[in-house]
Amino acid sequence: MTAPILSRRDLDFLLHEWLDVTALTERPRFAEHSRETFDAVLELAAEIAERDFRPHNRAADDHEPVMRADGSVEVLPEVGAALRRFADAGFTAASFDEELGGMQLPATVARAAMIWFQAANAGTSNYPLLTVGNANLIAHHGTPEQIEQWVRPMLEGRYFGTMCLSEPGAGSSLADITTKAEPQADGTYRITGSKMWISGGEHDLAENIVHLVLAKAPGGGPGVKGISLFIVPKVLPGGERNGVNLVGLNHKMGMRGTTNTLLGFDGATGYLVGEEHQGLAYMFHMMNEARIGVGMLATALGYTGYLQAVEYARVRTQGRVKGRVVPIIEHADVRRMLLAQKSYVEGALALGLYCSKLVDDQDTGVDAERAALLLDVLTPIAKSWPSQWCLEANSLAIQVHGGYGYARDYDVEQFYRDNRLNPIHEGTHGIQGLDLLGRKVVMNGGAGLAVLAETIGATVARAASGDALQAEYAGALGAALDRLLEVTATLWGTGDPAVALANSSVYLEAAGHIVVAWMWLEQLLAADGRDGAFYDGKRAAARYFLRFELPRTGPQLDLLSSLDRTTLDTDPAWL
Amino acid sequence: MTAPILSRRDLDFLLHEWLDVTALTERPRFAEHSRETFDAVLELAAEIAERDFRPHNRAADDHEPVMRADGSVEVLPEVGAALRRFADAGFTAASFDEELGGMQLPATVARAAMIWFQAANAGTSNYPLLTVGNANLIAHHGTPEQIEQWVRPMLEGRYFGTMCLSEPGAGSSLADITTKAEPQADGTYRITGSKMWISGGEHDLAENIVHLVLAKAPGGGPGVKGISLFIVPKVLPGGERNGVNLVGLNHKMGMRGTTNTLLGFDGATGYLVGEEHQGLAYMFHMMNEARIGVGMLATALGYTGYLQAVEYARVRTQGRVKGRVVPIIEHADVRRMLLAQKSYVEGALALGLYCSKLVDDQDTGVDAERAALLLDVLTPIAKSWPSQWCLEANSLAIQVHGGYGYARDYDVEQFYRDNRLNPIHEGTHGIQGLDLLGRKVVMNGGAGLAVLAETIGATVARAASGDALQAEYAGALGAALDRLLEVTATLWGTGDPAVALANSSVYLEAAGHIVVAWMWLEQLLAADGRDGAFYDGKRAAARYFLRFELPRTGPQLDLLSSLDRTTLDTDPAWL
Repeated sequence: MTAPILSRRDLDFLLHEWLDVTALTERPRFAEHSRETFDAVLELAAEIAERDFRPHNRAADDHEPVMRADGSVEVLPEVGAALRRFADAGFTAASFDEELGGMQLPATVARAAMIWFQAANAGTSNYPLLTVGNANLIAHHGTPEQIEQWVRPMLEGRYFGTMCLSEPGAGSSLADITTKAEPQADGTYRITGSKMWISGGEHDLAENIVHLVLAKAPGGGPGVKGISLFIVPKVLPGGERNGVNLVGLNHKMGMRGTTNTLLGFDGATGYLVGEEHQGLAYMFHMMNEARIGVGMLATALGYTGYLQAVEYARVRTQGRVKGRVVPIIEHADVRRMLLAQKSYVEGALALGLYCSKLVDDQDTGVDAERAALLLDVLTPIAKSWPSQWCLEANSLAIQVHGGYGYARDYDVEQFYRDNRLNPIHEGTHGIQGLDLLGRKVVMNGGAGLAVLAETIGATVARAASGDALQAEYAGALGAALDRLLEVTATLWGTGDPAVALANSSVYLEAAGHIVVAWMWLEQLLAADGRDGAFYDGKRAAARYFLRFELPRTGPQLDLLSSLDRTTLDTDPAWL
Repeated sequence: MTAPILSRRDLDFLLHEWLDVTALTERPRFAEHSRETFDAVLELAAEIAERDFRPHNRAADDHEPVMRADGSVEVLPEVGAALRRFADAGFTAASFDEELGGMQLPATVARAAMIWFQAANAGTSNYPLLTVGNANLIAHHGTPEQIEQWVRPMLEGRYFGTMCLSEPGAGSSLADITTKAEPQADGTYRITGSKMWISGGEHDLAENIVHLVLAKAPGGGPGVKGISLFIVPKVLPGGERNGVNLVGLNHKMGMRGTTNTLLGFDGATGYLVGEEHQGLAYMFHMMNEARIGVGMLATALGYTGYLQAVEYARVRTQGRVKGRVVPIIEHADVRRMLLAQKSYVEGALALGLYCSKLVDDQDTGVDAERAALLLDVLTPIAKSWPSQWCLEANSLAIQVHGGYGYARDYDVEQFYRDNRLNPIHEGTHGIQGLDLLGRKVVMNGGAGLAVLAETIGATVARAASGDALQAEYAGALGAALDRLLEVTATLWGTGDPAVALANSSVYLEAAGHIVVAWMWLEQLLAADGRDGAFYDGKRAAARYFLRFELPRTGPQLDLLSSLDRTTLDTDPAWL
């Protein structure tokens, strides 16, 4: 297959013709940058992704990490080589401060660079994704000494990082973790417990592994309030091994290139980050970005699968039109499957970049508070929507390939397996639904939802006076948005959280489709008056989303507004 | 996991409380049977499935068939052992004539037995599924000598069968196959060409493999009219190897236990079945049953995954309700995921058994013509709907398991991978849409659709005077059915097949949801007045389907009735 990893043309459209990221260089933090440096970063990302990440994607799937007798882990050598190239080129430190050796890029541009690696090789790209998240957290909440000791070598690619939250018995319910932290006389803590699903938990790819561990120190009270955050390195500053032991490797359906581990903390030495009992708050501070990162990972897999499906549909001949054997792209149903994929993956990419821009606005913009409100309410959607619909895109990419799509000779089946993880980790689909409906739309007196509605409303108003498609789109989206607001009020008007939240996943999906419909209306407006196949493609995909996708929200909103009790009233014994 | 493979309770409900299969014993063909013999067959199926099929399901996935240097294939030994038990117990011959050594069971009961094996081990169950289809075809269209020579040893489990239709360049478009059949002086044919995706194409599990091969004999004209059907055995009657060679094994995402091959026919000796140039007609004669078989395979995988998800949700604790740590089944969103699965898998099972009963009615009933019409129109749905929604059930089963569902320690990820094949083979989803909207609803002057509407209408009429849920259901289903009929008329009223068929997959999905909604209304009525958790579960799932699922058809029918041209108008260059 010669399909590109991603579409640079589409990225340029989104970054420049739509989001105008070059304007960010007017802010002091990004003053050293320019359109040229942004372009150079994306070109370099595409080049390393193509040369160092893509070629071993299948091999890393075929040859999962293996646990050696001594408890170490053997990883495909190409993974280490690719990650050295990645770090040496500065991508680990892309958005970090220059004084830490970073490029000080806007989050928007750093994300746009990162998805090249995610699309080329999801399994390998997870190592730096976790390392960046880890480094970011310590950079925000650690001491200057901790930053020097742990963040700098991570940014240099010498150390890798992990996030140790889940335990065998506690995933969605972090309040129930049992890992203990006992304070020692020297100010350190002894960490004891088991951590499950730890990606990058053990390997020889780096000099050290910096585990960020949630654990309960004495005196914190029950539940989440008792949770503190610790740095627990694999190798202690003195050079001796810490008490962090590999108990076993998890063998997964996909994402096999990423070592996934069960770790035992056996009285390991840990260093407190920030204050005791504030661990979950620190973690949540980073959660928006981690969740956008998962959404982008899902998007990357959906997008690259779409490009392979288009390529296949252009060259594979099958069936006839007017007696002539044709490439399958000439069949309407194949175009339906391609349009669906295009609308999902380009819609998801727009949403991910929009949210990344909000991260930049929150950190460096003039209306930071508004950006933060919008980011908070959009985050569960930016995580869950691509996880659901870019997985569906991968399924459609298989379908376009027919029997070949089910064979391991083609990449699309791996993308589908890899992508199935995304609705699970970093907060399951159900957790995102509770977060959106149970927290985000009601917190701050509903300010987040109000800002979202106002922002979507402004797009609708611009489109209403546009051409026929824009006006049709504005009418449909405006109506759906109004219904969403009504339904939200109806649900919380019950005063009964059990009833309000009974169908929170349905709410999440309806809100997701409305938000992505808005992303498509934004793209339609950004393409206004422009000619050529690229812009015609944007209009076709927008039209597809308007006609085939947005209407799905009708029955969902009907169900929600009826306060349906089916899920509540079903006795577990009936199942 | 101790979850059962399938629910015998549900099968008994469907077979006896709903379909009344014991009444079939009043027909001469089934006069030797009774409720007792039917029960015994199902018990034996469950027992062999549990003991011989289920235990090696994961091992067969881990250890795919391997091609040896001599072109033979090594298959996990447990597969052969299980299949000997299967054949020895008479299951290959379950529905065949007694004079051929068969049990002469109704198709309905034979299917109900078969799904135990499909649910326990899809990969292993595919060998007899293909063999039965092959034997059935020769039994109907072969000479008495061919039946004696090939069918009898297949029914005894000594020979296995395959179906060789697809080629590397021709799958959905069988008109374009290039395999040639040259007539020889002795009445045989020399078969030359390549056949792709041949399940069970090479192995040592049987004394012989009987390939049924579509090939073009001279003088048949272009396209499908030129296609004839041949028996091409691996081993010729004299004992020498025929010119059928294994070119390679296909390595798939799932269904790895089933050997899947590319075969080269290198001047192999073939025996004509029936008349020249009628091959595709014979194949289509068996197509309804083969497609129902695929639907049942999808159903089996969805169903067994659902039972594992319920079991897991009962024992896994996570989160709190009123401060108490609870099994996850107590969370409304987990019950939503379980209800969705239940409504998909039990709805699909009802549809598969209903269609199997139509096979019996078509072959032995008093109103055979009506049954045949109904079966024809329902077949694309019986194939495609379970392939789509029981795959979704498997995805939800993974989701209920959280991270564990993505790990290969649990079965659900394998079910999901195995099930992804079903929307592809035996006619893709898109092909089923064209078959339904382009052929089935218009052929015989629309008689099939009229009979379907009349039959659904009768159920609606019975329910309309029932309790509140039944009456609500009847109203919604009746309205959806009316709209489907209107939309069908609108589409064909265009007089333009390109416009009518532009969104045939959407039509297929809408019709599918309406048909399965009908299956749920039938079950609701069959449970009427009955108390207990089992019947309450049926009512809860029916209510779920009514409130959450049937409304999906609204936007689909709106789109169809608008004669939307988005897929038609999209230029391939825009994608």
